[in-house]
Amino acid sequence: MRIEIAAGSHFGTANLPYGVFSTPGTERRVGVRVGDSVVDLAVALGDDVFAKPSLNPFMAQGYDRWVEVRRRITELVSGEVPDEAVHAVADVTMHLPIEVADYVDFYASEHHASNLGRLFRPNAEPLMPNWKHLPVGYHGRAGTVVVSGTDIVRPCGQRKAADEDAPTFGECRRLDIEAEMGFIVGAGSPLGSSVPTAEFERHVFGVVLLNDWSARDIQAWEYVPLGPNLGKSFATSISAWVVPLLALGAARVPTPVQDPKPLPYLEEREPWGLDIDLSVAWNGQEVTRPPYREMYWSPAQMLAHLTINGASSRTGDLYASGTISGPEKNQRGAFIELTWGGKEPVEVGGEQRSFLLDGDEVTITATAPGADGTRIGFGEVTGRILPATEAKR
Amino acid sequence: MRIEIAAGSHFGTANLPYGVFSTPGTERRVGVRVGDSVVDLAVALGDDVFAKPSLNPFMAQGYDRWVEVRRRITELVSGEVPDEAVHAVADVTMHLPIEVADYVDFYASEHHASNLGRLFRPNAEPLMPNWKHLPVGYHGRAGTVVVSGTDIVRPCGQRKAADEDAPTFGECRRLDIEAEMGFIVGAGSPLGSSVPTAEFERHVFGVVLLNDWSARDIQAWEYVPLGPNLGKSFATSISAWVVPLLALGAARVPTPVQDPKPLPYLEEREPWGLDIDLSVAWNGQEVTRPPYREMYWSPAQMLAHLTINGASSRTGDLYASGTISGPEKNQRGAFIELTWGGKEPVEVGGEQRSFLLDGDEVTITATAPGADGTRIGFGEVTGRILPATEAKR
Repeated sequence: MRIEIAAGSHFGTANLPYGVFSTPGTERRVGVRVGDSVVDLAVALGDDVFAKPSLNPFMAQGYDRWVEVRRRITELVSGEVPDEAVHAVADVTMHLPIEVADYVDFYASEHHASNLGRLFRPNAEPLMPNWKHLPVGYHGRAGTVVVSGTDIVRPCGQRKAADEDAPTFGECRRLDIEAEMGFIVGAGSPLGSSVPTAEFERHVFGVVLLNDWSARDIQAWEYVPLGPNLGKSFATSISAWVVPLLALGAARVPTPVQDPKPLPYLEEREPWGLDIDLSVAWNGQEVTRPPYREMYWSPAQMLAHLTINGASSRTGDLYASGTISGPEKNQRGAFIELTWGGKEPVEVGGEQRSFLLDGDEVTITATAPGADGTRIGFGEVTGRILPATEAKR
Repeated sequence: MRIEIAAGSHFGTANLPYGVFSTPGTERRVGVRVGDSVVDLAVALGDDVFAKPSLNPFMAQGYDRWVEVRRRITELVSGEVPDEAVHAVADVTMHLPIEVADYVDFYASEHHASNLGRLFRPNAEPLMPNWKHLPVGYHGRAGTVVVSGTDIVRPCGQRKAADEDAPTFGECRRLDIEAEMGFIVGAGSPLGSSVPTAEFERHVFGVVLLNDWSARDIQAWEYVPLGPNLGKSFATSISAWVVPLLALGAARVPTPVQDPKPLPYLEEREPWGLDIDLSVAWNGQEVTRPPYREMYWSPAQMLAHLTINGASSRTGDLYASGTISGPEKNQRGAFIELTWGGKEPVEVGGEQRSFLLDGDEVTITATAPGADGTRIGFGEVTGRILPATEAKR
């Protein structure tokens, strides 16, 4: 059969994102999305590396193989595809596309870092002295990265309001999102070596949407001096479709001017800023449009920094940009910024809202320019808040 | 054959630690140490779960199985063991015993946290307000956990001395150790649930020695506000032998008095303080003897905290205690404390020393009381510093 692609589809042949899907009664395996269809790659290409429950075995084959397979898929979908290899997107279940090795979250938006600094440390300089010298980041919990559509149970934990003498235990009262992009390492690098910015595209396989769910009250109490932990570790959602970095050539833009000039290991000859437009919908209503092109540090700089101490990287490593916020209020990628710590609520469904209530649903979507003049889509990362469970003491 | 156990051996039948070993030309598999012998469990017990390159498949079988296998090994080694199942420790190569899922490092010694607070933030209260309310911790890099004996390449990175205007790039000038114990989760817990302190022993399989190598100059510059990253992520070493938690019953002691009283989810009926004596040798010379019994937070409290927000835990999760320091100067488990930021060097091999030089070797050992009145040993975690590689820019 020939696969139809509707005019204006974000999943035309300039995109071709990979995911892991199943159909009723079958095992998880790798597919590629074309229009509103999913092509079963193990069937279509006759290659068992795609008959696996994650993208990791294919990613581990390396850059040259990623190029070759993309070329073969492009040829395949421009002609007749065997019927048995094609499923409607509506008929499949999507799963976590990768086995996550290590997960690192950066903090690469100057607007976000400044806003959070003002909110968390009102009497100090909003940006720390190191912020413009290196991409600040920290390791997060790989085991709680979940696929889009997974419900999010409201976390419990310790929190202490400024007017309380001691912390209390209970459910999070300031549950928030962070709209981010995530970068997936396909080909790792050995212990004792680093990944120069110029080699970024030989190591990073693809890009996903990411929601770094954040319990602001838990985070504010716990985070000194070793950084966020329980305030973030309960769940991180990623989109089901991994957009290949090879599809993002037309989206490359310079990063904002970096002043002071970064140290040589962070310099880029060909910058890897990305012109990705995000949109965040709260219960179906768009509340903010974060622009990825505003990010101060590029993903190539982040990976170079992550490995400059000789740390190895592995197939399945996931690192995220940190909250994407632009200079305008309606470009802020976290509700704590958008509502200025809850002091300036936004209207959602006719109500004044600051943080997430049980039953709320947040959906982040994004598009970028594709090589053929169309826009390519990242699908969505969505999640609904369930009440805290009784088991919590 | 009957396995000989020398008088005073730290590997008597009260210990029976597990490891992953190979012999020339054979695959990695699980063994148990008895005296100076390693018993190949796949051969001795005829069970393929031990013919694997990590302990994870066995650990995933859960607590009841850990008890049963320990009983069977105890019976086995009290009688005749098939010759083909027995190797001399000197004839085998030891490997990383587990596949590390997530790695978390705590900060559970009040003496260490206070000392570091004084050194890193000299004009502030040494302990943060949250410290006595929760076990402070952060996620580290799982992919750079290495087995004892692995050489450590001196990391490069950004560092800025107090008298410098801007950071410079180069090799770490303040390379340090942290003597810790690591706890390995054998049986995980699902997303949305937590592990009560009383269920600790049903989830944690065993205990290892751990050296959290630390680049103090890189750490000091990078760590605000999201915590340590590159200053730690280049390498974390663990001992090859995993001492079963089941072997540590006689080592259980109360933790120091916890005041204020912890919130209910952190309370313990039967405390899991551990009477483990550590020793740190710098180029073969003992320089400090950290006492684990001084740790403020117990490992059961750490796991309860890690999961109280509903975060899942997985087979292979590793969490560490943080530096073990006692109240005395010769009980401090990091050189930055022992030498007070380099101001009070110690004599090593006739020289005044503060931080690690290329070629230095650090070996941490530990023992604890065993159930039969002997002392049981954790083996060692050792590593030698290699010069920074030229590839670093």
